[in-house]
Amino acid sequence: MKTEIIAVGSELLSPFFQDTDSLLLTEGLNGAGLSVSFKTVVGDDDADLDEAVRTALRRSRLILVIGGLGPTEDDRTREAFARGLGRKLVFHREILEGIRERFRRRGYVMTASNRRQCYVIDGAEVLPNPNGTAPGQWIATRRNRIALLPGPPHEMRPMFEDHVLPRVTPPGARPVEHRVLRLTGIGESLMETKIRDLYGETPPGVRVTTLASPGELAIHLILPGPGDEARAALDAFEAKIVSRLGRWMYSGRGKALEAVVGRLLTERGATLACAESCTGGLLAHRLTNVPGSSAYFLESCVTYANRAKVRRLRVPAALIERHGAVSAPVARAMAAGIRATAGSDFGLAITGIAGPDGGSPKKPVGLVYIALAHRRSVTVTKSQFWGGRNLVKFQSSQKALDILRRHLIKSGQKTYNRAKTP
Amino acid sequence: MKTEIIAVGSELLSPFFQDTDSLLLTEGLNGAGLSVSFKTVVGDDDADLDEAVRTALRRSRLILVIGGLGPTEDDRTREAFARGLGRKLVFHREILEGIRERFRRRGYVMTASNRRQCYVIDGAEVLPNPNGTAPGQWIATRRNRIALLPGPPHEMRPMFEDHVLPRVTPPGARPVEHRVLRLTGIGESLMETKIRDLYGETPPGVRVTTLASPGELAIHLILPGPGDEARAALDAFEAKIVSRLGRWMYSGRGKALEAVVGRLLTERGATLACAESCTGGLLAHRLTNVPGSSAYFLESCVTYANRAKVRRLRVPAALIERHGAVSAPVARAMAAGIRATAGSDFGLAITGIAGPDGGSPKKPVGLVYIALAHRRSVTVTKSQFWGGRNLVKFQSSQKALDILRRHLIKSGQKTYNRAKTP
Repeated sequence: MKTEIIAVGSELLSPFFQDTDSLLLTEGLNGAGLSVSFKTVVGDDDADLDEAVRTALRRSRLILVIGGLGPTEDDRTREAFARGLGRKLVFHREILEGIRERFRRRGYVMTASNRRQCYVIDGAEVLPNPNGTAPGQWIATRRNRIALLPGPPHEMRPMFEDHVLPRVTPPGARPVEHRVLRLTGIGESLMETKIRDLYGETPPGVRVTTLASPGELAIHLILPGPGDEARAALDAFEAKIVSRLGRWMYSGRGKALEAVVGRLLTERGATLACAESCTGGLLAHRLTNVPGSSAYFLESCVTYANRAKVRRLRVPAALIERHGAVSAPVARAMAAGIRATAGSDFGLAITGIAGPDGGSPKKPVGLVYIALAHRRSVTVTKSQFWGGRNLVKFQSSQKALDILRRHLIKSGQKTYNRAKTP
Repeated sequence: MKTEIIAVGSELLSPFFQDTDSLLLTEGLNGAGLSVSFKTVVGDDDADLDEAVRTALRRSRLILVIGGLGPTEDDRTREAFARGLGRKLVFHREILEGIRERFRRRGYVMTASNRRQCYVIDGAEVLPNPNGTAPGQWIATRRNRIALLPGPPHEMRPMFEDHVLPRVTPPGARPVEHRVLRLTGIGESLMETKIRDLYGETPPGVRVTTLASPGELAIHLILPGPGDEARAALDAFEAKIVSRLGRWMYSGRGKALEAVVGRLLTERGATLACAESCTGGLLAHRLTNVPGSSAYFLESCVTYANRAKVRRLRVPAALIERHGAVSAPVARAMAAGIRATAGSDFGLAITGIAGPDGGSPKKPVGLVYIALAHRRSVTVTKSQFWGGRNLVKFQSSQKALDILRRHLIKSGQKTYNRAKTP
């Protein structure tokens, strides 16, 4: 059964907005064992809408439509599907009463434009919307099954889950199996040479998709509605990939690198403090995006100015003068300094040139030093990243987290004696 | 002339990936005065691809296709368009030589699979790809003009700009006029009541789109390829909106709030240091996303642990014990403390409960205190934000930046005597 999602709205045809609702729908459909074959974005031009509706009715059995159910003139989804199906729109007085009551409860008077929302395609079931004024509609014809859903995600999502998913889930449906292997420190071409010969052994029905961006590589293994045997074949195939690429893999279940590092720190009872220059707080921001991070993350000193490096981290001013703020000795001093002053088990420091300005032939934009201080010693890594300011910031934070992750794994499960507060 | 963008790739039909390339294309097309009527996402299933190709050839004159030009089995765009146009694929030896040379320069041997990339639709022009192996193709028929572009943005973008835009830009094209008013501190419903009556006065051809998310509201005014008169009408309409909503508007030209704050600080020669608890570095991260921010941003102390607040910011431990870390007195002490210890003109501090844990009936998740310290005094603002951890972090950073922005505007253009280093 072909499934299509149509997102209606002229703003979605501008450079500024994306249809993100369809991701929510896809997740739900995959959970019911259904795959999506087409996604269409169309504006509120009647002719274009008619064209998109006709195309979908022809090529897809299940059609989920998002948006265009509001009260204003440019909400035209109802009309377009009525035309496409050759049915009338019928006024439903009880919808009007519901909207009026909703406004009354909030102390507003209903506007005349809301009457538009009371028209339902002849034969459609009304899908209640407890979170907004626009009701949804469910239309089943001999050929198509169609859901019209409101655009705002907090209205769309519950309506989809409560009223659409139960109608479309096949009996005994098996969810799509979706595994995400996440790697860092390896580029796409090296990854390809490592596993190219495995592609020929891909089990039937499994789709392998690799997605690469600077500092991050993901391998998606997708298998629609598998039985036990197919799942076992997927397990074996995944294990082969991991045996080749495990060195660079930080999660086999799609977890974020900062969450993986957080779990390792928690398991070891260790604490972390950071000193950031070129990442400007991104490292701390990522670490603190993980709920519960206050258990291991003590603080980060975002020492952008040199005098902050001196005062907060006790980096000798002479060291900065001699080697420059972006140098291995300064990175080392920052890591040791944040560990000592914060009283943490680990001190992680980053100094580099994020660009676009500040580079030189000897120290180009993208040059970054990362230092990790622990009980015994401080290690420094030099990297040359490419790309603009944001990419350099991200890659630096990624590399720093990975350096810590590797150290934690190597150091094993031993519990840390928490460093003493100085 | 109807224009359609087709993004090819099964990963784009999963819950995890979005077609973002089409936004780049739309921006370029709008700049050439062209609007997009349809966007289609389709996977690498041959039947689905054929269906999408047939539909596009029928309904759209200009068709831009992204992806599916790689060397692997599931790159099927070339074949699908050859079938759709009823043309043959022709092997181009010089493409093969180019790819082989590219591999040689990098010290690799070309794989046999790259031969797939040497097939060109009969009659198509080859679009060179200096940034990858997949050449693009340009096909002009009596009815359609078609560009096949590689998926990776750093390959797609230059090819589109150098070889496609010049071919599709109409002579004397006027770019789409697109203005973005950005506001914070006002919700969608209040905004609606303030400007509802203006919608009826929207000049012909102008499209108004409002987009709201927690802490951020944007009003887009879009006018395709306007002449002087239409632009003047847009100016007048925009001025009316600004007269109603100017109080909450931080940019009339789509700039980010951190960039606006950065410009105000630069104009005044003032410096800033931050103390962050619940935002965990996000405030510093946003400030340092602005190129050149090192001119005014000195540092941020991300004092997650209470003892870091005491040690770094000189917040009295007794104050934390008496009022709790999330309290007006502690926010005040953090702001004064960071200003004094950093030696900056301004100290901006945030302390709050980002959740999901740590809330209580008296201090629920989303409770945030923001304090701004300047020469004369410290002001504290209490907020109650809603949403999950990331939303609370974002709204807190947004409010903090806006508090500083309002203070800077109120304090006028006077130049600051930079505070002395303590």
